[in-house]
Amino acid sequence: MRRLGVAMVGGSFMGRTHSHAWRTAPHVFDLPAAVDMVVLAGRDAGRADAAARQLGWRGSTDDWRSVLERDDVDLVDVCVPGDLHEEVAVAALAAGKHVLCEKPLASTLDAAERMADAARAAADRGVLSMVGFSYRRVPALALAQRLVADGRVGDVRQVVVSYAQDWLVDPDFPLTWRLQSDRAGSGALGDIGSHAIDMVQHLTGHRFTDVVAAAETFTRERPVMTSSEGLSATGGSERGPVTVDDTTAWLGRTDRGALVVAHATRVAPGRKNAFRLEVDGSTGSIAFDLERLDELQLHDATAPAEEAGVRTVHVTEPGHPYLEGWWPPGHSLGYGDTFTHQAKDLVEAVVAGEQPRPSFDDGLQVQRVMDAVAASAREGRWEHVAA
Amino acid sequence: MRRLGVAMVGGSFMGRTHSHAWRTAPHVFDLPAAVDMVVLAGRDAGRADAAARQLGWRGSTDDWRSVLERDDVDLVDVCVPGDLHEEVAVAALAAGKHVLCEKPLASTLDAAERMADAARAAADRGVLSMVGFSYRRVPALALAQRLVADGRVGDVRQVVVSYAQDWLVDPDFPLTWRLQSDRAGSGALGDIGSHAIDMVQHLTGHRFTDVVAAAETFTRERPVMTSSEGLSATGGSERGPVTVDDTTAWLGRTDRGALVVAHATRVAPGRKNAFRLEVDGSTGSIAFDLERLDELQLHDATAPAEEAGVRTVHVTEPGHPYLEGWWPPGHSLGYGDTFTHQAKDLVEAVVAGEQPRPSFDDGLQVQRVMDAVAASAREGRWEHVAA
Amino acid sequence: MRRLGVAMVGGSFMGRTHSHAWRTAPHVFDLPAAVDMVVLAGRDAGRADAAARQLGWRGSTDDWRSVLERDDVDLVDVCVPGDLHEEVAVAALAAGKHVLCEKPLASTLDAAERMADAARAAADRGVLSMVGFSYRRVPALALAQRLVADGRVGDVRQVVVSYAQDWLVDPDFPLTWRLQSDRAGSGALGDIGSHAIDMVQHLTGHRFTDVVAAAETFTRERPVMTSSEGLSATGGSERGPVTVDDTTAWLGRTDRGALVVAHATRVAPGRKNAFRLEVDGSTGSIAFDLERLDELQLHDATAPAEEAGVRTVHVTEPGHPYLEGWWPPGHSLGYGDTFTHQAKDLVEAVVAGEQPRPSFDDGLQVQRVMDAVAASAREGRWEHVAA
Amino acid sequence: MRRLGVAMVGGSFMGRTHSHAWRTAPHVFDLPAAVDMVVLAGRDAGRADAAARQLGWRGSTDDWRSVLERDDVDLVDVCVPGDLHEEVAVAALAAGKHVLCEKPLASTLDAAERMADAARAAADRGVLSMVGFSYRRVPALALAQRLVADGRVGDVRQVVVSYAQDWLVDPDFPLTWRLQSDRAGSGALGDIGSHAIDMVQHLTGHRFTDVVAAAETFTRERPVMTSSEGLSATGGSERGPVTVDDTTAWLGRTDRGALVVAHATRVAPGRKNAFRLEVDGSTGSIAFDLERLDELQLHDATAPAEEAGVRTVHVTEPGHPYLEGWWPPGHSLGYGDTFTHQAKDLVEAVVAGEQPRPSFDDGLQVQRVMDAVAASAREGRWEHVAA
Repeated sequence: MRRLGVAMVGGSFMGRTHSHAWRTAPHVFDLPAAVDMVVLAGRDAGRADAAARQLGWRGSTDDWRSVLERDDVDLVDVCVPGDLHEEVAVAALAAGKHVLCEKPLASTLDAAERMADAARAAADRGVLSMVGFSYRRVPALALAQRLVADGRVGDVRQVVVSYAQDWLVDPDFPLTWRLQSDRAGSGALGDIGSHAIDMVQHLTGHRFTDVVAAAETFTRERPVMTSSEGLSATGGSERGPVTVDDTTAWLGRTDRGALVVAHATRVAPGRKNAFRLEVDGSTGSIAFDLERLDELQLHDATAPAEEAGVRTVHVTEPGHPYLEGWWPPGHSLGYGDTFTHQAKDLVEAVVAGEQPRPSFDDGLQVQRVMDAVAASAREGRWEHVAA
Repeated sequence: MRRLGVAMVGGSFMGRTHSHAWRTAPHVFDLPAAVDMVVLAGRDAGRADAAARQLGWRGSTDDWRSVLERDDVDLVDVCVPGDLHEEVAVAALAAGKHVLCEKPLASTLDAAERMADAARAAADRGVLSMVGFSYRRVPALALAQRLVADGRVGDVRQVVVSYAQDWLVDPDFPLTWRLQSDRAGSGALGDIGSHAIDMVQHLTGHRFTDVVAAAETFTRERPVMTSSEGLSATGGSERGPVTVDDTTAWLGRTDRGALVVAHATRVAPGRKNAFRLEVDGSTGSIAFDLERLDELQLHDATAPAEEAGVRTVHVTEPGHPYLEGWWPPGHSLGYGDTFTHQAKDLVEAVVAGEQPRPSFDDGLQVQRVMDAVAASAREGRWEHVAA
Repeated sequence: MRRLGVAMVGGSFMGRTHSHAWRTAPHVFDLPAAVDMVVLAGRDAGRADAAARQLGWRGSTDDWRSVLERDDVDLVDVCVPGDLHEEVAVAALAAGKHVLCEKPLASTLDAAERMADAARAAADRGVLSMVGFSYRRVPALALAQRLVADGRVGDVRQVVVSYAQDWLVDPDFPLTWRLQSDRAGSGALGDIGSHAIDMVQHLTGHRFTDVVAAAETFTRERPVMTSSEGLSATGGSERGPVTVDDTTAWLGRTDRGALVVAHATRVAPGRKNAFRLEVDGSTGSIAFDLERLDELQLHDATAPAEEAGVRTVHVTEPGHPYLEGWWPPGHSLGYGDTFTHQAKDLVEAVVAGEQPRPSFDDGLQVQRVMDAVAASAREGRWEHVAA
Repeated sequence: MRRLGVAMVGGSFMGRTHSHAWRTAPHVFDLPAAVDMVVLAGRDAGRADAAARQLGWRGSTDDWRSVLERDDVDLVDVCVPGDLHEEVAVAALAAGKHVLCEKPLASTLDAAERMADAARAAADRGVLSMVGFSYRRVPALALAQRLVADGRVGDVRQVVVSYAQDWLVDPDFPLTWRLQSDRAGSGALGDIGSHAIDMVQHLTGHRFTDVVAAAETFTRERPVMTSSEGLSATGGSERGPVTVDDTTAWLGRTDRGALVVAHATRVAPGRKNAFRLEVDGSTGSIAFDLERLDELQLHDATAPAEEAGVRTVHVTEPGHPYLEGWWPPGHSLGYGDTFTHQAKDLVEAVVAGEQPRPSFDDGLQVQRVMDAVAASAREGRWEHVAA
């Protein structure tokens, strides 16, 4: 069987989920290649070594560029903070390595443009790339996409999407890189709003054309960080300015006439990871909440009103997307498992020599919407999304 | 005991709910006056007579002006279509009758201004008026208001509100007055969005200052109506233009720094009467859904994360608002019962000679927000709400 | 239009709900007779007078037997404690008055037998009677019954039913008549378990044949009551023995081969009025929870597994049972409204001269099941239900 | 670091979940030993080899006894059908191997007694054993156990437990070993009812003393199986007798005075894996549903009634059981992850030389309850649980 050597750059929260996926996918699915978890590259040699051992990588290094020179590495998985995506991803593509890059694609639109250019050029040489909007691989959302594509809700008219978390309600949560605009690009918008943008477009097949937005930062100063681990962190007594949004809300219109109401926030008390969306069509609707990730709600407006109801489907049947490799009906999957699905799809695409989705171009398009949203919030007017 | 003579003008859907309330309130609560349901006025003598018998009024007339001359009428309940509110309400106030007027206050801002002027002038003469934003009297929402006012969620930062119905998904639902801008003023915005505006302001104590909106009419022609009953209606083969919005969405900012995401739609398949809102504060949140109207969700962000959870309170305890007159804990109230609470509060205010809320000024302020939302949707820019 | 004179005996919690129904039914539905709320009879003249005024009765008396002699009374509504049902109901039937008797039919099986005998004899004279298992008139449960009767779940195999409240969790709740076996017959079993028995048999069309039960009283002494109002009451410092069950659970078999798991409890913390049931058939299932009384859950096992899901139907459509007289879709009914439906059905049956259901024979059959359950709990063995 | 060599016997559904756990636990948690997945033993050499490759084992064999002779195997994981548990587990213990045995412990009480004897004898030699009631490691249930043990619901008075699935609703699902009493011991009772028994006792600290039960087999003949994979299987045209229960329901009493209502069924249409339970205490309650496995419901009866509500806790906080190694708050775990927790706890116990729980004695005690339940269903009377 063909072998696929993988290197990971970065090893924090996303590094853990991706490692879990690389370890697990070959044992849940029949992959067309054997995954070899070759090396993990981090900034600090000691931490990289510890992370590699913990997460299941054969080796480690503090020189990420060195992994690009290795013949046993076929694919580079980029899990570093957003401002470093471009450097690593472009170099990897240039070195002929396939690339999986965490979302959002970049911390600036310019960087995203350059990355997409590099990806297109690489693709001409058979070198493939993908951006990690992993929620496309939540079975309930993959089912939703299939149902919409099959016309089961009719023409999509409006989408309501909200991604709400509450980890920034605490005013003493420290200033991690995710709260600094020069590192993260934006706050709730880029971190979780980007998921909302990608998912709306993925589910409907529409693209945003125009947006109007409002953003707010409620806690404007936070403790300067002294240490971090995954998404958690510790701060000291010194405080520094938060330079990203706590909340961004926007209205959008799509190229096929739908209206979108969107909201991304990290200050919604009690909402832990509430990525909720509802797609309303001319003949039905679907609804989803990531906090109950194996449930999908369906309404068929053509059924008799007395019995149609809203159906709650437990998306754990063998015929549901990605379920063929897992447990019997009713046995829930978790958040981590969606990365396993992403790894599976990526390996299959790479082996088949086909462009995996979402591509860097898809990621760039999301970035353009994000950029228009941010500009609208800043300028106080509707903005057109660059085509 | 003092007696309060009531006349109703109009007798369709809202006429039925209001009649139910006038009949029921004296038997559920200890009112400070005996309610006398004197007369129902309608356009057609026969239908008015039938409605009066069915709904419990002592008499009927097809001349609504005649009821203003009756000494046994103390209060006029205005349940006619929106474009007729002004004429009836202003005349009633001028005749020294207290007025309850259905929401939204008027079909145009100018009319609302004149009505509020008339109400202020009447109040100086001890003649009182109220606009029927009845959801303020849903016990769960009255509890929510009390909790927010008591500081239980801290400073309100953002509100997400959505009012979704689906009765216009059917493209053959006919052109009732609610679908004609000259009769109704607007569509989803005025009919149900007005509830959203009033409730956001009522719950938070904030006022909208600026809004940006998008509106859409998905079904642009509908069968011309041949008959109607309550909210249902029958259409013929001829079609006419829909001149109001199926959906309006808007973002808003308030005078105390909160951000609002709002959505009113009558084309959300599967949502029957889903008036949902979530208020996020600095230390907690509340959430509500009218389709489960006796439940309120609370989150206390100051409680230990391991146990705080989101509390679902069944708002049927004796200590909950309006529950003193009803059933034991756990025995649900219904939609109709909220009008009974409205009637109770109005009778108490009238007897006490105190301004009932929401006043016509409150209704006018909602109208100004609606007007700014409609202007924004039309003009494609942020609009300031007139003070 | 024909006139139906009604007298009520008793005026506590059930008196309030029944009065609400008699007042409301004529205005919501097109009844074939005009309801005249003639007189309320109570033990104490002053309290009866106050209750009559509050609840909408034309007159009052402290001599319930006197109402049986009045020509303007056609129907007697029996809302006294269970041990008094027999005396009042049998006398009323003997006097030629139709009778509505609160559930359970009696506090002893012997009394129930005599009442059913009297009802049968009265029926031969055209005098009708009904027992108030009001939940048959919850629209969602009426819909459930229709669906099961139409074969929509196939052959019923098992029913799980639980009626859970928590008002006896408080050890200081006083010794009302509902906690004394000589007044109430039994505790959770008779008060709410009787609803479970009636509903299981009503929904399925099966009858219990054999049962095995366990019962428990967790708080064995409670404060002797000093005053009461509806279901709430006040106790003093003296304590007396509780002589009824806090909880009764039982297993049952039916005449058509189904298995039933049943539980009635008034000590389930957090459950306010959680009457829940699930009917499992060979091709589908239905589920219900009284705390969300306008929702019915349906599963169609013959639909494709990938989309069948569990449908939550908001039972507020015009085509749903009893909804023709109420509000538009999505506008919830409440607990009190189910009594209005009961009054409507009873008036229609009386005018048509047809036996209303549930009849006293139905109530007797429930009593036999209750008696077998109580005997089983006492004797520690399976008991056969008398035919 | 210490090394722990593991061998697995069997490789079907449970083999897959256990393999997932052995692969994953070392990378999620800081284990005190390195897990070496040495060998998988199956009946057929080819299938064992394929399973080993797929599931991540270094080697395979069709001679399970041979693995007991290997020095590099420290622990044997027994995932064979129930009637083979005894032979494999006892031999492994005799060979000095620690044992993890799938639940229920055995297919007969006699076998369970012998296994527990063997386990006790082995423990004296430092050889440890555990039975795989994996749901003890669902974080929400581990939290529930902690809360009950901490007195948070007061004295436990009653437990309602139901485990409902629907895979046997289809009358053409074939006769797998799980439907044959000589292989599985019992049907719903042993397969899923055993989880209910273990969990009730684990959560409350009580033990069943007496039970009364009813069981039923609705589909008495099924197609003889021609092939199987995991829990799914294919049948031919020949039919054979089902010799186990589709449904078993029972009432129980515990040694500390609680009443239990229990139900296990594989014919509940629409319930995929609905393991639901509610524990009612004197001052609070908890409730759980495995179909939403990261939610726990809590009610504190000592809180003010107006605000207590029922709290839904998303059990994904760092302070929740097992969450330290996983994702940030709100990121759900799945069914498979609970086996990872089981593997972690077992490795820690083995390295510490401490008895892991549930022990074979715990498993034996569950078996005694199962045996009493089965006897009661057969004999039609209350049965005492052997001590």
